[in-house]
This record gives sequence, structure tokens and C-alpha cells, in this order.
Amino acid sequence: MDLEKYSIVLQDYLSEVIIDREPKQLYEPIQYILSLGGKRLRPVLTLMTCHFFKDDFKKAIPAAVALELFHNFSLIHDDIMDKAPIRRGNITVHEKWDLNTGILSGDAMLILAYQLFEGYSAETFQELAKLFSKTALEVCEGQQYDVDFESRNDVTISEYLTMIEYKTSVLIGAAMKMGAIIGEASDSCKEGCYNFGRDIGIAFQLQDDYLDAFGDPTSFGKQVGGDIIANKKTFLYIKALQNCTPSEATELEQFFNRTPENPSEKIKRVKQLFESTGAAEDTKNEIEAYTQKANDVLETIAIAEEHKNTLRAFGEMLMKRKV
Amino acid sequence: MDLEKYSIVLQDYLSEVIIDREPKQLYEPIQYILSLGGKRLRPVLTLMTCHFFKDDFKKAIPAAVALELFHNFSLIHDDIMDKAPIRRGNITVHEKWDLNTGILSGDAMLILAYQLFEGYSAETFQELAKLFSKTALEVCEGQQYDVDFESRNDVTISEYLTMIEYKTSVLIGAAMKMGAIIGEASDSCKEGCYNFGRDIGIAFQLQDDYLDAFGDPTSFGKQVGGDIIANKKTFLYIKALQNCTPSEATELEQFFNRTPENPSEKIKRVKQLFESTGAAEDTKNEIEAYTQKANDVLETIAIAEEHKNTLRAFGEMLMKRKV
Repeated sequence: MDLEKYSIVLQDYLSEVIIDREPKQLYEPIQYILSLGGKRLRPVLTLMTCHFFKDDFKKAIPAAVALELFHNFSLIHDDIMDKAPIRRGNITVHEKWDLNTGILSGDAMLILAYQLFEGYSAETFQELAKLFSKTALEVCEGQQYDVDFESRNDVTISEYLTMIEYKTSVLIGAAMKMGAIIGEASDSCKEGCYNFGRDIGIAFQLQDDYLDAFGDPTSFGKQVGGDIIANKKTFLYIKALQNCTPSEATELEQFFNRTPENPSEKIKRVKQLFESTGAAEDTKNEIEAYTQKANDVLETIAIAEEHKNTLRAFGEMLMKRKV
Repeated sequence: MDLEKYSIVLQDYLSEVIIDREPKQLYEPIQYILSLGGKRLRPVLTLMTCHFFKDDFKKAIPAAVALELFHNFSLIHDDIMDKAPIRRGNITVHEKWDLNTGILSGDAMLILAYQLFEGYSAETFQELAKLFSKTALEVCEGQQYDVDFESRNDVTISEYLTMIEYKTSVLIGAAMKMGAIIGEASDSCKEGCYNFGRDIGIAFQLQDDYLDAFGDPTSFGKQVGGDIIANKKTFLYIKALQNCTPSEATELEQFFNRTPENPSEKIKRVKQLFESTGAAEDTKNEIEAYTQKANDVLETIAIAEEHKNTLRAFGEMLMKRKV
């Protein structure tokens, strides 16, 4: 897949979007976080999807950049809420500057994202801004559900899926739909692109949960078992609780109420339970089901077969990843 | 002036705008801050201005409510930044809940404000959202300048005026311009409304500075001299520094580097300096000049003379206030 060309045009635009603005204390943190890189997954998807429908995919650059700004806005505010010291291997904004700068620069970034839609025609502007607001609000709701779930012991699988859909996947769906909107696709194609992105996004997040416990330590970038150490109630945990015997449930819940200094015994036993209860297998099946659902939706999108293959390969790449 | 009718229709709409939304932890703080009241100055101005141009002023309600949401969003985030415990006589959101709730509910409120424009036609939507984004970004910039000025000793009068224009006055201008946009006023009338609101807003803020030092303790709601105690570099302070002798400048700067336990001597002497240097008189003249500028702009707005009188009376009411 030739995603490189999209990254390159984005880079030029991203590095210019807020150059030389005053007051510096407000805009420097924005330039800083944008300079830290990242996968640029969302804006690349916007450009690629637009390209499926229209040769002139560069028309989608402002919308693509808006999504990257929004994504980075949410990272700045989330890092404050999580008290995270490091982002993409660098100091987080609120640590490098301070809390107030993190809040205010984040706010400005959200507004700048909306401004990027202003160059489109009134109709397109309204369609993009509506989708953007709906999605942005869902991301806030997903973040709130994630916080709420920390102190709850009765989260259901369906609630968990809604949380990751809102917190992560709707933005992937919106990124693809925006590309389709600017590519002047039909309404049903726009919806198809949204659904493909959302379902692949859910599969992606479940894969994240799975790899965190069962990833190969030699290739997985983070510490394997990080979610178990942090007592995070992921899909694996909720499913294991659902599948297990009452005595296993007690054991699992006790593990997730403690944070031992040396976590290796805990990680080992919890992973055993994830496997013996079938939760690991169930998670793999759920990932497969969402990937399949995404691929099925491709049938409803009126784009060339080669483009569908690109999207299938893209989904496969996300699922096959070890990191 | 019959502003009551505008407040009443607003109240109904405001109390319904986010009823019964989930997750509660995200939306309850929004309902809470909206329930604390306040003057509703901005949305009332939007409705009143729309009414000058169109009988059906209720068409402007969603835009008016958007401005009230934005204003309250900025209060939530500003209160976090200022570590303020009390807002409108009640506990601030980040104190009643916590920091994270304050950040996230504020973010959601900003997005909800944009959503309120969605019911307008595509052209009006774009015009309102553009004005809103420009204004919202200026408010962020004004807030940042205000923070920057705290640690600077060389702020000029012109920089100070820009800061209060951005932080406070552009939102008053935008409130009136939005009313004119929805009232389908001509471009020059829209600009006239914006300029009237902005200039009255600057006069209003300068009056705030003046009353803080020279308000009547028996009728002024807050502690007289609060800005002097907090070493705030207001218009009075900057002007006094500009007008005074070198030895007075040293004295004034020394006062503003200290926070004595009993501030009454400091307040007394600083007020003396504000008067003897002519800074107090200069401030009154500046307020008068901006009020005059606002009234002059009325000549360019094509509305009935009685409406112009209403606006003049409105400006006068703001200037004559003791609180």
C-alpha cells in the first residue's frame, strides 16, 4: 500500500498550519505536539478514502488536518486527566509547560480544527462540521465512560464495546466518511465508509487489548501485561468473569483489587484464567467478527475492486500487527 | 428596557438543552453551571439585536444559547486555571466534582455550542460558525495574554486594551452580530452591531477596573481594592506608571511586588497615586471615549430610532452601574 504519499503532503500542511501565531505561549505547545509525529492514521484515511472517489484527493487535506488536530487536542487533555508524563517518547504538554497551558492550548486546538473546514462550500462545511461535532462529543462521552468504568464492577460486554466505539472507533469512521464527503460519494457510500472505519476501529482496539496480554515480549513495544498490572477491565477481563466459575471469579476480582510490587505471578495466573475460561479465544473471535463485518460492508461501497483490496489489506495489516 | 421577555424564553430553552443525556457524570456539571444563572448578557443581546431587524426574534434562540454555553465553558476552564473555589456564589465545577470532570465537561460544552448552529441553513450555519470560531479563538488568546501579563512589567496601554478586547469584548460584539445575521441585516449593519458590542464591551471592562478601586463600598458587591490587593496590572496601574514621576514609579512597583497581611495602607496610598497621577481621570475619559465610539457607530446601523435609543440606554446603564 502506498500510504507514504499521503503522509508527505500532510506533513507539509501540518508544519505550516499554525506557524508564527501570537501569543507564543498558546501556539507553541500546539506546534510541539504536532511535531512529535505519530501514525497520522486518521488523516491518511481521509485522504485515501477521498482518493477512491476523486483524483484530486488534495482537496481533503484541510479536513484531514482538522482530524489530526482534534486527535492531538484529545491527547493533550487525556494526558492531563491520566497524569501521563510521556507521549510518543517525549514529555507531555502539561509537564513541559503546565496544567493551564495544557488546558488552554487544547481548547484552542479544538477551535482551530473547526476553522479548517471553513474553506469548503457552505453545504460541505455544514456536513463536515456536523459529523465532526457528533464524533467529537462521542469521543468525550467515551472518555467519560472509560473513567466511570474504573470504579464499577458490573460493566457488561455491550457497555465495554460502546465505550471503545465512542472513545476510538467513531473517529476512524468519521475520518473515512469525511474523505467520502469531499470525494462527493453517494450517501450510501458515505455510510459504508463510516461503517467500515468504525468496525475496523473496534477490531483494532480489541486487538490492542489482546496484544497487551498475549503479545510477543520480543516484538511488543510496551510492557506485556500492562493492563493486568493496572487492573484495567478490558474485554478479556469482562469476558473471563462472564465465563468462569464462582471461585475463579472471586480469584480474578481479588487479583484486580491488588497491585503487588512484583506482578509476574499475578500476570501469569490472570493470563492462565483468560485462556482457560475461553476469554482469549472469545476475544480473537470478536476481532475476527468485527473485521468480517467491516469487509462485508465493502460490498455496499461503489469503488473499484482494487480499492476494496486496499481496504481489506489495510484491515489485515492492522490485525496482523504485533505492536 | 424590556429585556425580561428575552431572559424568559432563554430560560426555558437553557433548562432543556441537555436534559437526560448520558453519561451523567459528563452532562450533570453542564446542567449545574447553567442552573447558577448569571446575567445572560450575551444571549439577551443576541435576541434583542435580532428583534431590531425581524419580528420573529425566537429564530435566534439556538445561537443565543450557543453563546451562553461558550461563555460557561470558558468560566469552567478559567476557574480551573485561576484555582477559583466560588462562581456565582456557588462551588465551582472542578471543586464540586474534580479537575478531570471540569476539563471534560468544558470540552463537551464547547462542542455542544457548535451543534446549536446546525438547525440554520447551510449559508447561515457557515457564517455563524466562522464568527464563533474566530471569536472563541480570540477569547483563548485574550486569556493567554492575561496570564502572560502577570509576569511582565512592561505591558503597554495598547497591549492591555487588546487583551480586554479579546478576553471580554469580542464575545459581546459577536453576540450582537449573530442577532443581526439571523435577522438578515445588511453586511454594514452586521459590522455596525459587532463594533457597537465590542466598544461597549471595552468600556464595560474598563469600568470594571475603575469600580474595583473607586466603587462605593456600600453598594459595590465585591471587596473594593481587590485588584490592588492581587497586584493586578489594570488600566489604572499601567496609566499611573506612565504618568508618574520616577520616584512614584518605584513606590508603585514596590507596592505591586508585595502582598501585606493588612492591605488597607497599600490600598489607600495606591488609590492616592491613581488619582494624583491623573490615571483615575484618564480611565474615566477612556470609558467615555469608548462609549462615545459605540454610540457614533449607531449612526451606521439601519434600525428605527427607538432601537438606537434602547442601545444608548443599554450602554448608559452599563456605565452608570455601581456594581
